[in-house]
Amino acid sequence: MSTKEVVLPLIGVQLALLILFCVFGRYSTHEEDAAKYPMFQDVHVMIFIGFGFLMTFLKRYGFSSVGFTLLLGAFVVQWALLCQGFFRLDGDNKIEIGIESLYKADIAAASVMISLGAVLGRTSVLQLFIMGFIEIVVYSANSYLGATVLRVADAGGSIFVHAFGAYFGLAVSYVMNRKKEGNSETAVSLQESNYTSDLFAMIGTVFLWLYWPSFNAIELTGAEQSRAVVNTYLALAACTVTAFAASSLLTPERKFDMVHVQNSTLAGGVAAGAAANLVLLPVGAVVVGILAGFVSVYGYVRLSPTLERRLGVPDTCGVHNLHGMPGVFSGVLSVLMAAIATQNQYKLDLFDVYPARMPDFKIENSTAPRTAAQQAGFQALGLSVTLVIAIVTGLVTGFILKATTKAIPAKSEYDDATFWELCEASAPAGDTKAGMQYDNACFEVSTTDARLP
Amino acid sequence: MSTKEVVLPLIGVQLALLILFCVFGRYSTHEEDAAKYPMFQDVHVMIFIGFGFLMTFLKRYGFSSVGFTLLLGAFVVQWALLCQGFFRLDGDNKIEIGIESLYKADIAAASVMISLGAVLGRTSVLQLFIMGFIEIVVYSANSYLGATVLRVADAGGSIFVHAFGAYFGLAVSYVMNRKKEGNSETAVSLQESNYTSDLFAMIGTVFLWLYWPSFNAIELTGAEQSRAVVNTYLALAACTVTAFAASSLLTPERKFDMVHVQNSTLAGGVAAGAAANLVLLPVGAVVVGILAGFVSVYGYVRLSPTLERRLGVPDTCGVHNLHGMPGVFSGVLSVLMAAIATQNQYKLDLFDVYPARMPDFKIENSTAPRTAAQQAGFQALGLSVTLVIAIVTGLVTGFILKATTKAIPAKSEYDDATFWELCEASAPAGDTKAGMQYDNACFEVSTTDARLP
Amino acid sequence: MSTKEVVLPLIGVQLALLILFCVFGRYSTHEEDAAKYPMFQDVHVMIFIGFGFLMTFLKRYGFSSVGFTLLLGAFVVQWALLCQGFFRLDGDNKIEIGIESLYKADIAAASVMISLGAVLGRTSVLQLFIMGFIEIVVYSANSYLGATVLRVADAGGSIFVHAFGAYFGLAVSYVMNRKKEGNSETAVSLQESNYTSDLFAMIGTVFLWLYWPSFNAIELTGAEQSRAVVNTYLALAACTVTAFAASSLLTPERKFDMVHVQNSTLAGGVAAGAAANLVLLPVGAVVVGILAGFVSVYGYVRLSPTLERRLGVPDTCGVHNLHGMPGVFSGVLSVLMAAIATQNQYKLDLFDVYPARMPDFKIENSTAPRTAAQQAGFQALGLSVTLVIAIVTGLVTGFILKATTKAIPAKSEYDDATFWELCEASAPAGDTKAGMQYDNACFEVSTTDARLP
Repeated sequence: MSTKEVVLPLIGVQLALLILFCVFGRYSTHEEDAAKYPMFQDVHVMIFIGFGFLMTFLKRYGFSSVGFTLLLGAFVVQWALLCQGFFRLDGDNKIEIGIESLYKADIAAASVMISLGAVLGRTSVLQLFIMGFIEIVVYSANSYLGATVLRVADAGGSIFVHAFGAYFGLAVSYVMNRKKEGNSETAVSLQESNYTSDLFAMIGTVFLWLYWPSFNAIELTGAEQSRAVVNTYLALAACTVTAFAASSLLTPERKFDMVHVQNSTLAGGVAAGAAANLVLLPVGAVVVGILAGFVSVYGYVRLSPTLERRLGVPDTCGVHNLHGMPGVFSGVLSVLMAAIATQNQYKLDLFDVYPARMPDFKIENSTAPRTAAQQAGFQALGLSVTLVIAIVTGLVTGFILKATTKAIPAKSEYDDATFWELCEASAPAGDTKAGMQYDNACFEVSTTDARLP
Repeated sequence: MSTKEVVLPLIGVQLALLILFCVFGRYSTHEEDAAKYPMFQDVHVMIFIGFGFLMTFLKRYGFSSVGFTLLLGAFVVQWALLCQGFFRLDGDNKIEIGIESLYKADIAAASVMISLGAVLGRTSVLQLFIMGFIEIVVYSANSYLGATVLRVADAGGSIFVHAFGAYFGLAVSYVMNRKKEGNSETAVSLQESNYTSDLFAMIGTVFLWLYWPSFNAIELTGAEQSRAVVNTYLALAACTVTAFAASSLLTPERKFDMVHVQNSTLAGGVAAGAAANLVLLPVGAVVVGILAGFVSVYGYVRLSPTLERRLGVPDTCGVHNLHGMPGVFSGVLSVLMAAIATQNQYKLDLFDVYPARMPDFKIENSTAPRTAAQQAGFQALGLSVTLVIAIVTGLVTGFILKATTKAIPAKSEYDDATFWELCEASAPAGDTKAGMQYDNACFEVSTTDARLP
Repeated sequence: MSTKEVVLPLIGVQLALLILFCVFGRYSTHEEDAAKYPMFQDVHVMIFIGFGFLMTFLKRYGFSSVGFTLLLGAFVVQWALLCQGFFRLDGDNKIEIGIESLYKADIAAASVMISLGAVLGRTSVLQLFIMGFIEIVVYSANSYLGATVLRVADAGGSIFVHAFGAYFGLAVSYVMNRKKEGNSETAVSLQESNYTSDLFAMIGTVFLWLYWPSFNAIELTGAEQSRAVVNTYLALAACTVTAFAASSLLTPERKFDMVHVQNSTLAGGVAAGAAANLVLLPVGAVVVGILAGFVSVYGYVRLSPTLERRLGVPDTCGVHNLHGMPGVFSGVLSVLMAAIATQNQYKLDLFDVYPARMPDFKIENSTAPRTAAQQAGFQALGLSVTLVIAIVTGLVTGFILKATTKAIPAKSEYDDATFWELCEASAPAGDTKAGMQYDNACFEVSTTDARLP
């Protein structure tokens, strides 16, 4: 198999982006965005180092994990700049691009990276590009609907990014998996990690863990931003302790499992997301972290096998456990918190957090501002709508991929050799014996050759 | 061996933290802390990526190194938020948590990570938790005594963090090592690094090296902060050149030794610490770096073997050479610098650096401010008290660990298999032959299996 | 071979730096530099993590790649602080050192790291030190000539850093390669990467990719800075998509090649450099990225073999394709952009971007400010002068290295064993068989020994 089929699409899509930037692109004049630059860089690291290396846990898919994260990310951030811009064109029908647009594009890319985690190893580059193209359109529309039309509060993107990306990706994964012959034994063995690949993955985990407060706080200022940082930090810390305990409790040999440490330690960041800027209080953040850590590990141990075997939804990185359930949990939490939010507790912040509750706010053909209960209802609506849209459009995307693209053969799944030149010099095509030597030469340091002068 | 014993303690401790946060936790209202956020994130990276990966140099202890750094760190930052908060409760007996508290908690965690480096590979998770629990209490009390009561100036924490953490950890290590049967050959062979593990460790080293100026400058503002950045940068650069020279000079084959490069290149940051904000002048910072680099490499080559064999103090990561001696050196430097500090040289900064020298400062039942000599005396007192407290409480902690917990067997030391599920599918317990295959499958890419369809 | 020869030079050079800092060093009083601190740290990561790990792609040269980056970087930043300072001594003949000087020193170090990439694996530490010593002198003089005397605009350093560093390094490489006996087979085999080393290299690539906007924007403020961030981000994204397409298009098996992904994805950052702060518009940045990505991959596939075989210029990391051609391309772009820059388009920024066009600007004994065409001419002059200076001084440096230092034997090239102690305990010198075992023990996890109690 080669990556030949993808050359023209890549060039075509980049030229199309060029034309769109030509027609619509303009520099932003909001120079005060510069204050967000350090947090933008933190988020930038999360998308490309965080997601990229987190997915290198597969022992023979490290090149693809980090490489496709870079490739797909480079495409979708450009496309997200445009798609998000179409929803807020300025007076001249131009899209203003500045530091704010860049971090919003990075956040949009996060949803695609999450979906990538669900289908990782079983998709061609062309399929990833089509998926990313559709997903960014739907993401932008759904975020606009939720945040701007419905005025749903989701500071850290747990609903619009994490839950959306996870269920979209799982729906794609479900459709692509249907009526497929059994997995080859090769692919099954390649779905494992090895010692080195697990350590590479920890680079991704730890950077995601460290910079998550920036992800949840980047859109905020003042006391809201400070609360988001504190809540996320505490939720992650409590989640980590709990995830280790749950890992030891729920695994057969009662030892820690790297999969849980790589992923479930992060669930607290997702779960804090939609409530990050709310007055959870430190204790609330700790509670959220504990629940998220336990739910996530439980998901890996008990739900993932069922999801794959019974429902036929493979989930390579377990995004359901890291982004899906914790995202929904965060959405539900945001409903509860909205229902009990009082002006007494939030002071003037209340109207920054929930603009639709502002006295002179005009929305939905009503002159009265929303009550706490109404805001809670809208939070629930936003979560529900997001889940429905994610699943439906994900299924449609899956069908489009099945109908229009060639699936990669089962024996080429989870294998970098499918897409990458691996020490080609010593591996003549079709020569199995030489193929083995080439493996040897590529995957290990060939000590004997190297030492003889 | 399993990690079963640790499940209940982990859950229990996290629930206890929850209750304490419920009773005492409150959001800080100091929004101006936001300016410290980028430096906070640098320090955050140092603790979890820096220390975590630096310790992955052990060839079979990478999961534990980076995993336990995350687990232990997640616990101790929460505990440090509380312990440090108890020393500055607000009017309502509440602890205010904001960005300042978070970076102070991270800095406290650094002391535990340093102690972890001394005992790495020979402790159970439960032992690490107990050690971290006690150490944070003592750290908080000692820092309060030194910085607030005695008004000792230690901007970069060389005394209160580095020297404290190192001698506390070495004292624990000493007690735990007593009356132990000889090391098994397995453990000895596992105390080595391999090529890949040494490269992973360099990720930790370089991030520590890069962000160290933030560590030394985070508590400062204005000219003091700028001096701390410049002094630390220069000390690290001079230290690095010197450490390479010393490494080649002092090793038998006259080649560079990775241990020195991973560790001694950082000694300049420790040594600059307590004097980081002082008017060392660029030349002074370079002198400090040169001395620290040489002392640290000398320690690795000459003192560490003696320390272990003669005194019975094992020191897995050589924290005595990276944090212990350079920390004491920095403390002594702070005595000398305090003795010669004049208002002429520091201008108004003098009273920011040494508040007890301010004309109207009331301290120790005296109406007169401290003289330079008196401040120098207090610096010496702070250093001495810290060393005594670290060693005594470290010894006590060691005895507590010996008395209350089960030591891990010598043959399970330095081995991730003791705590982690490693490719359990292919490794039935008790089947030695299968065990070897499982090793093979986990630690190398099993090329033959993977290629046959 | 040992590194004995380098001990005295290292100590001597560090003591010489000490004396120079003593005579000339002073703290800067420009505290407003603190606002640049986060971008400084981004650039800092690029130099030491970015370049350091990017070069670890060589399978047996990882210690040297990341270690020598640290060592050489630690030396040249000190030397650059002094050399750059000599061109702007203050009234007392002192050099002011503050955060601005530190990031300027880091940027200077980038030029040396680029040259290092050209000669990597074929030079001794002493040679690298001599090269770095000379290069920083020439770099400082050339940058002063170009930026201050000729008023050439090069915000991202494409001309003065990237093109300069690449052609200087290639010239050194050319001279050092002359009249050398054929490469040993060992060295040839060691010029390859393996699976793990390629993943380590991606750590460098991705951090360079992420922080490149900081590199191009750090010297700027306001709208210029914002444009530089947007232009660089878009150029890198477009470049990445194009580089993957070109990689698949131009490689024999039509697959992606890690070399291109590691390097050519970054060419957009170089190419945007000299025009980063200009009104390229988003579409212009995308065009620049597309061209850079294609040119860079084309260079790796078609030009590099020619360069080495026909012209005798080995280029270990392909710096000609990542820094050389894209740097020249950026310089040419800066000529064109200068020629069409109008005050209408730039508003008041025009005089920040091109100070020599300011109405009351006195330069070159003329009372009239430069026209757009004149500025374009000066851009072309700056580029040409830089290339001539880089090549001539690089050739001279090569001759100096050949004349004064001992070359490392061909069989010791690209091999960490030449400089580093590798598991010396188990490898008695001269015992080939033991040597093989030692390789085994160092480069793989020796599973059998480790499992038997």
